[in-house]
Amino acid sequence: MTDFDLDLMQQALAQATQARLLAPPNPAVGCVIVAPDSQILGAGHTQRVGSPHAEVMALRDAAARGHNVQGATAYVTLEPCAHHGRTGPCCDALVHAGIGRVVASIADPNPQVAGNGFARLRAAGVEVEVGPGAAESRELNLGFFSRMVRKTPWVRMKIAASLDGSTALANGDSQWITSPEARADGHASRARACAVLTGIGTILKDNPTLDARLVDTPRQPHLVVVDSRLDTPPDAHIFIAGRTVYICASEQNDIKKAALEAAGATVLYLPDAAGRVDLAEMLRELARREINEVHVEAGHTLNGALVQAGLVDEFLVYLAPKLIGPGLDMASLLPLAQLSGAVPLVFTSVSQVGPDIRIAARIPGRDQF
Amino acid sequence: MTDFDLDLMQQALAQATQARLLAPPNPAVGCVIVAPDSQILGAGHTQRVGSPHAEVMALRDAAARGHNVQGATAYVTLEPCAHHGRTGPCCDALVHAGIGRVVASIADPNPQVAGNGFARLRAAGVEVEVGPGAAESRELNLGFFSRMVRKTPWVRMKIAASLDGSTALANGDSQWITSPEARADGHASRARACAVLTGIGTILKDNPTLDARLVDTPRQPHLVVVDSRLDTPPDAHIFIAGRTVYICASEQNDIKKAALEAAGATVLYLPDAAGRVDLAEMLRELARREINEVHVEAGHTLNGALVQAGLVDEFLVYLAPKLIGPGLDMASLLPLAQLSGAVPLVFTSVSQVGPDIRIAARIPGRDQF
Repeated sequence: MTDFDLDLMQQALAQATQARLLAPPNPAVGCVIVAPDSQILGAGHTQRVGSPHAEVMALRDAAARGHNVQGATAYVTLEPCAHHGRTGPCCDALVHAGIGRVVASIADPNPQVAGNGFARLRAAGVEVEVGPGAAESRELNLGFFSRMVRKTPWVRMKIAASLDGSTALANGDSQWITSPEARADGHASRARACAVLTGIGTILKDNPTLDARLVDTPRQPHLVVVDSRLDTPPDAHIFIAGRTVYICASEQNDIKKAALEAAGATVLYLPDAAGRVDLAEMLRELARREINEVHVEAGHTLNGALVQAGLVDEFLVYLAPKLIGPGLDMASLLPLAQLSGAVPLVFTSVSQVGPDIRIAARIPGRDQF
Repeated sequence: MTDFDLDLMQQALAQATQARLLAPPNPAVGCVIVAPDSQILGAGHTQRVGSPHAEVMALRDAAARGHNVQGATAYVTLEPCAHHGRTGPCCDALVHAGIGRVVASIADPNPQVAGNGFARLRAAGVEVEVGPGAAESRELNLGFFSRMVRKTPWVRMKIAASLDGSTALANGDSQWITSPEARADGHASRARACAVLTGIGTILKDNPTLDARLVDTPRQPHLVVVDSRLDTPPDAHIFIAGRTVYICASEQNDIKKAALEAAGATVLYLPDAAGRVDLAEMLRELARREINEVHVEAGHTLNGALVQAGLVDEFLVYLAPKLIGPGLDMASLLPLAQLSGAVPLVFTSVSQVGPDIRIAARIPGRDQF
């Protein structure tokens, strides 16, 4: 049976989109409650972590508007939760409100809980349909799905370069290659992420803030620094009140660690066999710490290490309208013997942002998990 | 007075566009002849060099359709010619046919003849208006305008690279970085040009044909090779029956010259003070030889020399969805001390062509002449 209204699911997805910056590390979910005569009774989306989920927000909205939801249908973009997490289970709220039917886009991606919500609803006599809007809902929450399924975050690498591919002059000068419009767009990408990732080279060279200050966002991303020897200065600009800063190191140094912790950092020792930071283990650790999506903004050395290790899922490249000539590469890669050894990509979107070009590209297959 | 119909001029411009591949080195011109009641009586566009111009084609079309053009208006995208060139003056044809009014987009760009056509028409009692469609007509014939005004061709540099800006591996391997779709699009650009320009390095490395075989075109571009010491092999693939091949050299060598001429080449000695080919003088010489538009498809050395000499007007860049890492640059430029020294561009169009990205960019101000 496919008795649902795709337009209503589109409205639920639009609600979910509104939660995109607010919800992480929770998934961005939208819910629309509809009477049998198709009247919309209430709508809502996921709030900040620890606050109500979409279903409860939609039920509250219906109540505030004086609507009776008895026998109504709830369109929701993700399987309602069945467990007591930071909030009570949404399934119970739907059942108690008298919702007669749930149309959900897609099951919870966590293999250990997927289907529990649907089962709990059905056990309470609620009719359940699953499927409409599945691809859109998953794409909207690709980082959350990645963390739940792969146990690693979705990794997006942001690069700003000249048309001829230089990210900085050979002497290192790089501020600013791209335009204010491209920088604001880049901040919107930071705002979507759970964490911005950079390297010690960038910290020491630019002393950046790496926050999402150029966009209006209700939540700032955490910061992760790959810093083998804990060389981050405790007075670096990355230390912002209330921000979680992870310093990932490979060489223990109690004195530096204490100074960085005093500045607000959380130091993680993640050495690999060669004595460098184990980047793959770092991503697993970040996933354990509820990081869905990592926005990488680093120099060519760390960029190259992440690409060579096969840890990058997508690229967000801004190209400025200029030719720089010899300079620093987007990512330090080893010379290829054959073209077939190139890192393959698929361009997923291309547009102009101010005077610059914005290119989104994915490594084929990385989003299939 | 502005008594004209822009839609009719758009139809004349559409006619002109049809002449884009056929007309060079003549300008691509369109003409639509309209009765006082707005009925279209005839339309035409420039034919191959030595064949009738747009006005005569439109008059013939009207005659073939049995229409009387007495007192009609001719919409034409360029000032009708007043001189006896390879064909008789179009002004006279219009006057003799009884055309009462001419609406023209723009004057002939040749400063020595501009206005003569309008004056000749007015002297014969034909009403003349100038202006509608001027920018479109000029843009359609930017190479012709460049040759007439600047006395040099419009120079477009085509580059195929990976997203990270490499045109070939460090070992030189480059076939093929971009897709068949991008290559066909590149051939359409070759077909628009009067000549394709390349360097001896490309000839020796790839032995390319450099024709426009992947598109349906009534005219193939000439070929120009920058080849200081006449090292082009007389059996190179560039020698195609009927094609004009200019070999631009700086060191005289009568034996090699004779062999190349036997293969069909025209050898031009254009040495500069340093003993290399004088690229600026080469462009002036090409303009004297009626080359409107040059499509550069060369390696990083010649590309770099042309860019550094300030001789390039626009870039057509295809980016393939791959990262290659260290390889050959788009153009060999000197390292910059400051970002302000970069070659400035404006992106004029960005689109996807098959799996690749197509970027057109101009050096600001170069089209203002």
